[in-house]
Amino acid sequence: MNTVLILSGGMDSATLAYHLIEKDHTIYAVTFNYSQRHKKEIDSAIKIAKHLNISHTILDISNIGMLLKGSSLTDDIPTPHGHYTAENMKLTVVPNRNAIMLSIAYGIAVSLKYDMVAIGVHAGDHHIYPDCRENFIHAIEHSLQIGNESNITIYAPYLTYDKTDIAEEGAKLSVPYQDTWTCYEGGENHCGLCGSCNERKEAFKLANVKDVTEYKCT
Amino acid sequence: MNTVLILSGGMDSATLAYHLIEKDHTIYAVTFNYSQRHKKEIDSAIKIAKHLNISHTILDISNIGMLLKGSSLTDDIPTPHGHYTAENMKLTVVPNRNAIMLSIAYGIAVSLKYDMVAIGVHAGDHHIYPDCRENFIHAIEHSLQIGNESNITIYAPYLTYDKTDIAEEGAKLSVPYQDTWTCYEGGENHCGLCGSCNERKEAFKLANVKDVTEYKCT
Repeated sequence: MNTVLILSGGMDSATLAYHLIEKDHTIYAVTFNYSQRHKKEIDSAIKIAKHLNISHTILDISNIGMLLKGSSLTDDIPTPHGHYTAENMKLTVVPNRNAIMLSIAYGIAVSLKYDMVAIGVHAGDHHIYPDCRENFIHAIEHSLQIGNESNITIYAPYLTYDKTDIAEEGAKLSVPYQDTWTCYEGGENHCGLCGSCNERKEAFKLANVKDVTEYKCT
Repeated sequence: MNTVLILSGGMDSATLAYHLIEKDHTIYAVTFNYSQRHKKEIDSAIKIAKHLNISHTILDISNIGMLLKGSSLTDDIPTPHGHYTAENMKLTVVPNRNAIMLSIAYGIAVSLKYDMVAIGVHAGDHHIYPDCRENFIHAIEHSLQIGNESNITIYAPYLTYDKTDIAEEGAKLSVPYQDTWTCYEGGENHCGLCGSCNERKEAFKLANVKDVTEYKCT
């Protein structure tokens, strides 16, 4: 099976990369620079791709990202602190991000005559991000298949997982989580306070997986 | 009504721009440089936007276009000559182009809190391009609405028009067709031989609209 993987450099897509390799997929990984504040995740994507020795392209779409206003991830808006399901986390929504990334990745898959596009969206994202939910993933898969007269599928095996389930799977697959990046801030280490850091900490704790992350605030 | 318009610089989107202005829309026009051979259409888009004095952004996604292989529009493949409905015109399909452009335009519309995204796809495109057909437009609209919990619609009023109908409407709206670009070749003038030029010639003829285009070969 040949698969285009959207590899952000976070825990979810890194685990998905290892999951695909275990299932003998050939991977073409794509990482998007959409002008996110947390550019460090791109370095993490590079490390993961190197560990796995997979094809990897970094696509600079920062000119698009700069037009997608209203998110603390791309604009000069303070990163919200707290639990990742809290209402203020909606400030981290980047308009239409997954549709844009999936459309580009799907075009590459058509071009390469690949079988799948893989994305690490999971149930923990569902509350805040409508473009991580099952109905969206199915609807966009359907539209892209029609638009290309194609059978290429979107593979999102974590739609029913939460981040704890992902950490459990990743531990079994020996994912080098020290080389993944989660924090929404642009700092040197994980801040430990943003919703994304809190979800990461909780996932390792609930999964009984040693958390090797260096947090600025614990 | 506030509308993000995908403005290529061709006859269809130029006519749509004039159509929207007649209906009192405020337009934010977006033109994509996707590494197409016929970059002259971008100059045409600039001229149309200037004529109408509308906001206009040119988005360089040529790094993406270069990954969407297999089309004579972006690759080093000879532009096919002949009628625009002939099978060899499938060489001009750019994988997933409309989904990519619509997803980006939709994200901008969400960000701007606009009402619509407009695109000039028409029935003449249906034979060759699956991403210009009604079922695709409806499916992607549905998926983008779900993915953004949004009511923003995709406005494609030419889905039931052919290019002759568009030329008729454009003549009534006084669209300056001399400032639009259709040809798939990268030449100084319209080649007059590619499927796109043939469709343009036929449309003006059948619509009884004077064709002011300078063709290299008539």
